[in-house]
Parts: sequence; structure tokens; C-alpha cells
Amino acid sequence: MIEFKAVKIEKPQEVNIILGQAHFIKTVEDLYEVLMNNVPGVKFGLAFCESSGACLVRAEGNDPELKGLVVKNALDIGAGHCFIILLRNAYPINVLNAIKNISEVCSIYCATANDVEVIIASTQAGRGIMGVIDGAIPKGSEGAGDKNQRKQLLRKIGYKL
Amino acid sequence: MIEFKAVKIEKPQEVNIILGQAHFIKTVEDLYEVLMNNVPGVKFGLAFCESSGACLVRAEGNDPELKGLVVKNALDIGAGHCFIILLRNAYPINVLNAIKNISEVCSIYCATANDVEVIIASTQAGRGIMGVIDGAIPKGSEGAGDKNQRKQLLRKIGYKL
Amino acid sequence: MIEFKAVKIEKPQEVNIILGQAHFIKTVEDLYEVLMNNVPGVKFGLAFCESSGACLVRAEGNDPELKGLVVKNALDIGAGHCFIILLRNAYPINVLNAIKNISEVCSIYCATANDVEVIIASTQAGRGIMGVIDGAIPKGSEGAGDKNQRKQLLRKIGYKL
Amino acid sequence: MIEFKAVKIEKPQEVNIILGQAHFIKTVEDLYEVLMNNVPGVKFGLAFCESSGACLVRAEGNDPELKGLVVKNALDIGAGHCFIILLRNAYPINVLNAIKNISEVCSIYCATANDVEVIIASTQAGRGIMGVIDGAIPKGSEGAGDKNQRKQLLRKIGYKL
Amino acid sequence: MIEFKAVKIEKPQEVNIILGQAHFIKTVEDLYEVLMNNVPGVKFGLAFCESSGACLVRAEGNDPELKGLVVKNALDIGAGHCFIILLRNAYPINVLNAIKNISEVCSIYCATANDVEVIIASTQAGRGIMGVIDGAIPKGSEGAGDKNQRKQLLRKIGYKL
Amino acid sequence: MIEFKAVKIEKPQEVNIILGQAHFIKTVEDLYEVLMNNVPGVKFGLAFCESSGACLVRAEGNDPELKGLVVKNALDIGAGHCFIILLRNAYPINVLNAIKNISEVCSIYCATANDVEVIIASTQAGRGIMGVIDGAIPKGSEGAGDKNQRKQLLRKIGYKL
Repeated sequence: MIEFKAVKIEKPQEVNIILGQAHFIKTVEDLYEVLMNNVPGVKFGLAFCESSGACLVRAEGNDPELKGLVVKNALDIGAGHCFIILLRNAYPINVLNAIKNISEVCSIYCATANDVEVIIASTQAGRGIMGVIDGAIPKGSEGAGDKNQRKQLLRKIGYKL
Repeated sequence: MIEFKAVKIEKPQEVNIILGQAHFIKTVEDLYEVLMNNVPGVKFGLAFCESSGACLVRAEGNDPELKGLVVKNALDIGAGHCFIILLRNAYPINVLNAIKNISEVCSIYCATANDVEVIIASTQAGRGIMGVIDGAIPKGSEGAGDKNQRKQLLRKIGYKL
Repeated sequence: MIEFKAVKIEKPQEVNIILGQAHFIKTVEDLYEVLMNNVPGVKFGLAFCESSGACLVRAEGNDPELKGLVVKNALDIGAGHCFIILLRNAYPINVLNAIKNISEVCSIYCATANDVEVIIASTQAGRGIMGVIDGAIPKGSEGAGDKNQRKQLLRKIGYKL
Repeated sequence: MIEFKAVKIEKPQEVNIILGQAHFIKTVEDLYEVLMNNVPGVKFGLAFCESSGACLVRAEGNDPELKGLVVKNALDIGAGHCFIILLRNAYPINVLNAIKNISEVCSIYCATANDVEVIIASTQAGRGIMGVIDGAIPKGSEGAGDKNQRKQLLRKIGYKL
Repeated sequence: MIEFKAVKIEKPQEVNIILGQAHFIKTVEDLYEVLMNNVPGVKFGLAFCESSGACLVRAEGNDPELKGLVVKNALDIGAGHCFIILLRNAYPINVLNAIKNISEVCSIYCATANDVEVIIASTQAGRGIMGVIDGAIPKGSEGAGDKNQRKQLLRKIGYKL
Repeated sequence: MIEFKAVKIEKPQEVNIILGQAHFIKTVEDLYEVLMNNVPGVKFGLAFCESSGACLVRAEGNDPELKGLVVKNALDIGAGHCFIILLRNAYPINVLNAIKNISEVCSIYCATANDVEVIIASTQAGRGIMGVIDGAIPKGSEGAGDKNQRKQLLRKIGYKL
């Protein structure tokens, strides 16, 4: 018997979330180091759901509010071997490749500042993440003016030449 | 309340699809550049579901038919921050590592010329991709002769020595 | 009409499983080579669900028991273009980055020695993996003593200095 | 007839230099984008020695002093297809993997805040980088106390847990 | 006693060369497969200098002229564990990241369609590559008009949006 | 005034050496962790030439003989920011991609079990690695029989299917 539910991530509005699947408690130290090594001044909390042995939510970070929130969110999700990062003073684009490159990381479900609902399946064995609802449904497709604004925005913030 | 539905991707039979999760509208330009830089003569359309602000399907490409189809498919799926590529004159194997390596890309759901159904979850918050049905169910396991044919095929097309 | 079911992976308790999504039968040879090239003495079975043409479970390996089990598990899962590896004498951490780096590999659902249930969606078109239940639900969050034990364990086994 | 000379890089003392080999003028835009995308607030100049056609030193950046200096250094080195980056408000560790990952980049000669001499070979055909002298010669090997200080430093600045 | 000499690469003018350092004869098959897998229609020759045992230049390819030339160039260079690729119907930008990613590849000296001189050091022990002279010396630095032309060229050939 | 000399690496015959360029003392811990995490049972010594501040050869490892030898070799080479690894119970192919992927690593000069001479340039400023002589000069090019033996060897040791 499988039950599905949607778990809403709790976070300050401007904070980004990165949600992924990994294995092994070394993930916690590796995520910490990758975040600290890639962006000077980054602030974050990160948590990992250990799913054998002591089965504890393992957490690190350098921002007390975000450390508290990642633990709460990880307990709400409760899926074995998932991890969650809440990120301030940095954007997912600054760190995502380095995170994908960690040797315990399987995959990333989302990286976003949007409101996120995590779709969870539960059985007698445990819980697992099926996917995420990452922000709102599209309202239409871009026209020539929208396309132009999109390109100008990226050039204005300096991400593209 | 979560509702699930299956969305069939519309595409010409021989065209390959790559479906993934990313974040941020820069994904559109980065996907375009990676495809153009990796395979001389590639033809494609690509679309990304912006999921905050204007919430538009953002699209680029160099093949008008495929550009039209990716927008239609992206609107049908409607999952925040997903992207879809339709690809001609190239195979996913030519471009998949370069796409995985883009700093906005979270993960890839599938890369295939098969018929694809995308399993979508909907809640009041929006829609998300749970997974894909990528082609047909296995009919059995390979025997010695099948194994031999498999290896010969890869050598005949030059992918293996 | 979508039906969901949970498929339990059958494996010896200490054996690790890596479950992922790929495309194209070359995946079988590439996974074989990556495993053999990365860890001296590794033992494994691996299987891939071909999902067009002959639609056979394609398999390789160097451990007869694990080769038999991966085929059985692949047939039970039956999702197009998925692959499954069972691994002895090596840990996922030894090979996961090399696997993520294979040009046919889309993503990894899990890498674990836990009991695993794979959540499958079935439609008339076929079957697809939605996610996994990888071990047990967290029982709480770590305290200062747990944190200390976690760090000491990684240093005792030499993974961290 | 080969002549060797040592070219000293001119730079402010605290500024880091990254020196590498690439090909094709697209390197200039790709380096710019990688630097801007990886570290919020980074300041830099970068130059590339075009070595066919117009044979111009191509340059970009967002710090006028560093842009002027990279052009001067590139002209002094004069080796075909080399590039030089001068970096403020960021460390090589923040950006080096992203730079190695650019599809025009061949290799990196050094990444350092030290004084650097670049060893150049000249023939009638042109000039090439043979290697670099990156800071001072070792004075001895570390003892137990030095080792301890080394580890503590990395933990104090938060790069390691 | 070290002697230096410059070895000129012999190649058709429009053909690109990639020169690198690797280890182990498996390099030959891995380079072959990476080239074949990344660009449909690529034509190439590749050679590797085995430097123990039989000490033979090992070669593969699918273009007879280029296969002949890479062997000649490899014998002229004669540096242990170096490899050389001559490439038609493809550009280094299409394949360089895939080559850097091969697990036997140490580094890339150059990737270019320019005339190349390889600077070799010889001792009684053997020969080694010190660096390359890759095309011509810069004649000056770009002005605003050159910068504009550079950007337009990349957009005209579709490498940038 | 530049002086060149050849420094012979001292090592047991069957032991492999990996020689590269990095920056920053964190390299020492990162190399240690990558080696320990990638190959169960690996034995090694590694050293890094710090080239500012205390200017000490920094070393780690789990094999006393190899730890002693890497320090001796690092002092003999004496080039700023170079590192040297001596490796037992593992092959470079098992670890080279993970090492290239470390965010302080610039490039790899060689990875080999051959006798190695390192070509060093010295100026008043310090010393730098120009390149390596990695084993013997080729004696000729392979014929059809040699090609066959090469392919069979890789299949016999299981590196290729």
C-alpha cells in the first residue's frame, strides 16, 4: 500500500533550496566543504536523512536560523538518504555543479527560491521523494518582447556578455 | 490533494527528446549554446518552464517545427523549472554530458527516441514531474546470441572498437 | 489510467545497489568498463532494460550470483531504460562519479546498501520509476554526542583527515 | 633555434592569477561568464592571445585596473592561445573547476597569489609557455607542529570541518 | 645533459590537432570511442607513444591519411605517453571536454588548427614535451571595433545567442 | 638567467607516480581524501610544495616508505605548488579523474609506473616544472599483430569487453 503526500518546504522567501539524494553520512561534511569552498561569505544550513543504524537527521551549517529550518524540513520529508540545503548570500548557480560532483550525491530534485512542495511516497518500509512542485504553472509562451527582456536581464546582471 | 496524470510527448518518431529539471531562465541560453557548440549541424528546439514572475515558457532553437513542438509539450507538462529538448541530426549521447554539466541543470529524467509519457503530480501549488515512461516493458532477458548481436551492433556503427 | 506499485529489490544484505536511468544499449558496456577500471577486485552484476526493438534485459558482470539477481530485479521493475547494479568489494562512493559521467546516464535514483523499494508507475504504454524508498525513516535529529561520533567514524575509517 | 626567457607577471600583491592554454576566441566570453556566474561580487580582468587572423589580445573584465594589467601581461608573454586571469574578491579555489570545465580550455599552468615567472620558448614560428615558477623553493619538510598548524588553519577559515 | 628541439607537426592546413599526455595503452581505445561517440561523421587519426615494454606507437582512426600522419608525428615527437589526434569534420570544442574526462588523460598541451611546433627535451632517459608554440605572436590588443567584430562572429556562427 | 636540470624520481619499480600542479595547502587533505575514498586498500604517500609563508613540503599518506620517498622527491624537485603522489595497490586509472576534479588542482604532468625525469627550470625567483620524460622513446609503430595483442590484453585484464 503506497500513500502519497505533499510536504511544503518551510523557508524565508528569498532563501534558495537545493534538494537531492545521496548516500552515506560523509555527505554532510562534503556538502559543508563544497559550500564553504565555492562562495566567500555564503550562509547556509544543510541536513541529511541517515536511513540505517541510528537513523538521525545529520546537520551542519553556519547560519543558526537556516540550520534549524533544514532539520525541521528534513524530519517533515523523512525520506531515506535525501539531503536539503537552505542557502543565503549565494545562488544555486554558484554551487550546483560542485554539489553534483560530490561522490556521494546521486541526483538533485530541485534548486530554487520558489515555494516548493515535495511529493512523498510512504509504504511500510519508509518514505521516498517522487518529485517536487517547484513554483507556479506557466501562463503562456514568450513573445518577441518577452524574449528580448529575458536576454537583457541576463546581460544587465552580468551573467552573459 | 495530489492528482496524477500521464502527458504524452508529441514528436516526430525519429526525433530524440531530453527532459530535465533546471532553475533560472539562463538555462535557455546555456542549453542553446551547449547544443550548438557540441555537434556541427545539429537541429533542435528547446523550452523551459519559468515558474515565478512572468511564468512564461521560454524557448530557443534552430528548427521551426521542433521549436513549435517543444513549446506545446512544455505547456502540456507545465511543471515548474522543467526543460525539454527535441533533437535532430544528433543523438543524446553526443550532448548529454555537456547538458548535465550546465550549472543550472539539476537532473535529467530521460533521453530517448522512444514514445514518452511524463507522469505529473498536480496540487493547488502547481505541477511537478515524478518520472517518465520511456518506451516498452522488457519481454525477457538476453541469451548468448542476443548478447553477441548487441556487441556486434555497437562495433558496426563504430561506437566501440 | 496510472497504477503505482512498490517493487522490493532482492539482494544480499551487505551488497550495494545503484539504480539509474540511461538510454541506449551501449550503457551496458560502459557501466561494465567503468566498474572494472575504477576498483581493482570489484565484483558485480549489472542489467539494463532495453525499451525498443527486442526489448530485452541486457546484462553483464563478473559475479554469477549478482548477475542472476540484477536480471531478476530488472524484470521485476520493468521500467524502460533503467539500469541496476549490484556491487560487492566496493562502495558506491568508489564509482558513483564515474557512473554519473557516462554519456548515456541520465540520473541516479539511489546508491545504497539499505533495503530498497522502487516506486513504479504503470500505464498502457509501459512502466517508469518515480522514485525509491531507501531505508528507514529518521527517528530524530543528532545531538552534540551523535555529531561527534559521526565525525570520529569518518576519521577512523580514513575517509577524512 | 629555441630561445628561453622568463617573463614576470605584473600584478598587485594580493591579486590571484590563473594562467592557462585554450583555443578559439570564444574562450574570452566563456571565461567571463564562468567568473560572473560562480562568485557574487568577483572583480577581474582576463585576456586571451588570439594566434591566427588578426592576432589580437582579446580582453574582458569588470575591474579597469586588472583589465589593463592582463592585456599588458598577455602582450609580454605573447604565447599563442594562452589566457591570463587576474582575480580580486575571489580565490582560485572558487572558480578553478568551472574554468577547467570550459570546452575550449586545454590546461592550467598555475593558479596563485605568488609572484610568478612564466618560462617562454621562442622560435621563428612564435612563442609558447613551457611552465611557470610559482613562488619560492621549499625550505624543508613539515614537522608534527607544522602539520597541526596546517590543519587548524583550514578549520579556522572554515574550509574543512 | 638536456637538449631541446622544436618538432613541427605535419598536417593539412584545415585539420585540427589535439596534443596531450596520458598513460597506458587503453588510451587508444578510449580516445577512439570518445571521438566516435561525440560527433556524427567525425574523421580522425590518433596515436599514442607506448613508453614501456614493446614501446610502439599505437594508433587508431577512420581516415587513412590522418592515421598515417599521426603515426609520423608521434614518431617525430617520440615523447613517452604523449598522444596526438588529427581531426576533420569536427572542431576541438566538440570533443575537448570528453577527452579531458578520459581517466587515462593527464593534460592537453594544445587544441588548434594553427601551425604547431612542439618543444621537446631529450636526455639519455628519453624525450618529453615541455610545451608548444601554437600559432603566431599577438600584434596588439583589440579596440572597440575589434571587440564588436569578435562578438558578432560568435553570434553569426551560432555559438552564442 | 634560466638553468634547466633533470631530476630523477626515486621510487620502487612497481609503484606509480602522479605528478601535478596545484595551489594552496588544502591540496594535501583533498588528495588524501580522494585517494582514500576511491580505492579500498590503497597505499600511498603524497607531498605538496608550499611556496609562500613557511615554504614547507607538506605531506600525508598511509604507507611509511612512500611517505618518506614523496618528501625526498618533492625537495629534489622544489617547484612551487607542485604535488607528487606515490601509489601502491591501485593504478592511476582508478584515481586520476577524481584528482583532476579537485578544485585546487591545475594540471597533471604525468601518471606512470615508468622511470620519470622531471625537467626543472631555475631562476633567481625559484623553480618550476617544464615537463617530464616518462619512460622510453618509441621503437616503431604497431603492426596488425601488435594491434591484436594490445586489444586482447585489455580484454584479458577485464578493462574492455
